[in-house]
Amino acid sequence: MTAEIISIGDEILIGQTINTNAAWMGAELSRIGFEISRVTTIPDKRESILMALSEVTGRVEVVLITGGLGPTSDDITKYALCEFFNTTLVTNQEVLGMIELMFQRRNLPMNESNRKQAEVPESCRVLYNATGTAPGMWFEKGGTIFVSMPGVPLEMRYIMKEHVLPELRKRFRSSIIIHKNIMTYGTFEARLSEILEEFESQLPSNIKLAYLPSTGIIKLRLTGRGNNRRELANQIKDQVNKLYNIIPELIYGEDEETLEQAVSRILKQKCYTIAVAESCTGGMISHLITSVPGSSAFFKGSVVAYDNSIKTDLLGVKKETLNKYGAVSKETAIEMAQGALRLFNCDFSLATTGIAGPDGGTPEKPVGIVWIAVASKEKTESASFHFIHDRETNIWHFSFSALNMLRLRIIKT
Amino acid sequence: MTAEIISIGDEILIGQTINTNAAWMGAELSRIGFEISRVTTIPDKRESILMALSEVTGRVEVVLITGGLGPTSDDITKYALCEFFNTTLVTNQEVLGMIELMFQRRNLPMNESNRKQAEVPESCRVLYNATGTAPGMWFEKGGTIFVSMPGVPLEMRYIMKEHVLPELRKRFRSSIIIHKNIMTYGTFEARLSEILEEFESQLPSNIKLAYLPSTGIIKLRLTGRGNNRRELANQIKDQVNKLYNIIPELIYGEDEETLEQAVSRILKQKCYTIAVAESCTGGMISHLITSVPGSSAFFKGSVVAYDNSIKTDLLGVKKETLNKYGAVSKETAIEMAQGALRLFNCDFSLATTGIAGPDGGTPEKPVGIVWIAVASKEKTESASFHFIHDRETNIWHFSFSALNMLRLRIIKT
Repeated sequence: MTAEIISIGDEILIGQTINTNAAWMGAELSRIGFEISRVTTIPDKRESILMALSEVTGRVEVVLITGGLGPTSDDITKYALCEFFNTTLVTNQEVLGMIELMFQRRNLPMNESNRKQAEVPESCRVLYNATGTAPGMWFEKGGTIFVSMPGVPLEMRYIMKEHVLPELRKRFRSSIIIHKNIMTYGTFEARLSEILEEFESQLPSNIKLAYLPSTGIIKLRLTGRGNNRRELANQIKDQVNKLYNIIPELIYGEDEETLEQAVSRILKQKCYTIAVAESCTGGMISHLITSVPGSSAFFKGSVVAYDNSIKTDLLGVKKETLNKYGAVSKETAIEMAQGALRLFNCDFSLATTGIAGPDGGTPEKPVGIVWIAVASKEKTESASFHFIHDRETNIWHFSFSALNMLRLRIIKT
Repeated sequence: MTAEIISIGDEILIGQTINTNAAWMGAELSRIGFEISRVTTIPDKRESILMALSEVTGRVEVVLITGGLGPTSDDITKYALCEFFNTTLVTNQEVLGMIELMFQRRNLPMNESNRKQAEVPESCRVLYNATGTAPGMWFEKGGTIFVSMPGVPLEMRYIMKEHVLPELRKRFRSSIIIHKNIMTYGTFEARLSEILEEFESQLPSNIKLAYLPSTGIIKLRLTGRGNNRRELANQIKDQVNKLYNIIPELIYGEDEETLEQAVSRILKQKCYTIAVAESCTGGMISHLITSVPGSSAFFKGSVVAYDNSIKTDLLGVKKETLNKYGAVSKETAIEMAQGALRLFNCDFSLATTGIAGPDGGTPEKPVGIVWIAVASKEKTESASFHFIHDRETNIWHFSFSALNMLRLRIIKT
């Protein structure tokens, strides 16, 4: 079962648009068992489209095509498809009705080019699109299925989820595939693969483990293949349980949960409130927390204490502490966290102070160093970490380390 | 002058890695006058690589290839290149010396696979890589130039900038091309293109205008072609001056400057200090400001006042104001800004209060509404905006609107 992707659009070739569609479709196709053998990006040109279509015919079972279906004159995919599949455009009344309804609802006037969106190649199967004016189109030729979709990511994903993926799953029912993601934070990939070496070697032959790292977070993806869904699900569950036994502290969540979502989930479960005192992370931790819908239930607020005077005046860090240990120190981090706890009158507080770079480092306190403290009325804990990235990436790592420290503290309560 | 790009890597095909390399190379190639006719992504497989290389030979002048040059067993590009160009691997002493030095500096032991990185196809020209262990390789065959580079973006960009782009510019000296970016914020693309309709129609035939929008920011790119560099530069300069006359308030910077960088630049020039009181933006504005190196020179800090008690207790918003007008109101935004000005003792302050969604909206105050205030000792100004996106995008737009309001205020002082 092999598939190819054809992306049509000058804007992708000249780098104005990054081809995220191909990545998304590749991931979805491989999830249902397809091997993706090629992705080809071509310009909005008749000859290029015809050439790409004829090259791929018979080479693979499925070809997904995106782009060039808009209403403007540079969108020519539909015409090239008609030529390639030897058919002509006809107005599809159902599509026309949907477009008219869409314009009515938005109270917008329709013009000729909108109406033309309802014209589709006569020989194709129309895949209705509730998110835009261009429908998807399904063709078959020379043993290959061709599906043409708009390049707007939202519309492509709608058509894929509603029509293409269910149909492909039906047509290419091979073995059952189950994916399960386990989200980890707290170590690097090489170390994690050492820890899991034995686990991996003992995996049943029908289950594979993949490491998918990004900015400190490592997604462990278990992919199982089998013939009986229930049996396979149980098999995967056993392996997941094993992982929880081997790396209980590193696992923060499952599926696609982010670290900030996991922290939010636990805080809500336990009915705790929190506040943050940020120096080097400059608002990033607050931003991550408040990016989760419903965070107002537990997040009281934060102080970004960039200037030292704010650390003393607002958070109550002692001047002697700053003078004796410096702003980037365990002692300052602890007093910042304790200050935030008082100021916001919450259950837990989190504080960061460090050097994100590129400047400001010294031999004793190099760029990339951070002190983090977590406080509650009972006790204050602190830790320091050292990263060696650019400013932006250091700020990410500082923020994730802090969120993870908070997570480890509250799950034990 | 046409070029193609070949990206090698299973991780791209299955969507684990998004092909940002192809976008970057496409942009750089088109900047120096190349037309990119195709981007092909293929797996780390001998047959796929050989097939892609033979397909492209003679079809275009230049082929840029990335990926598959790492030290592990699935990296096979070098072997496929040897087969295709009918040559063998030899150890390059200069590359070996560079790798040894790299490991010495980092105090790491070298192993056999690191040493193998110094082996290069005998017939290629080696492009030294100061950022990693795999060098770039330059081949020529059948009228086509082939350049193979590592897939690590940092390393690919180094080799492109140091070796490939200068050499291509020398070899394919056609007409001179000058690009100039003008960065704008404050209106949407359709409206901006109306405002600039006359300007665009009066452009000399050798200068083109492109609109490159992303999250509220619209980059205007002027591309000029000519034979005399100085004349062309003057021509572009005239057009840029015209733009400044037509849309003075919308232009916040040039080249690739971000809005937060522009605000930082102006604050530094004018020696002003600022602070922020954030509600709905939840730390995003502070994060954007502190992402700019050196922001500690003007940024005193911020309060993220998510909970209403923080608005009253810390920022001094009156309880009556909250009761009478609500937390999302002009009056609250103004009092938040004035509170931050007092608390942080700075020259200007910025405050936001709004509803990012998905919940919390009412018919009077729908999701996407935001009130922004800018205060100084002299006066406090406020404005409201309404966006209709998801939570994440609304937070972006709220933050950019606020930064832009601050910018417009301080440039007038």
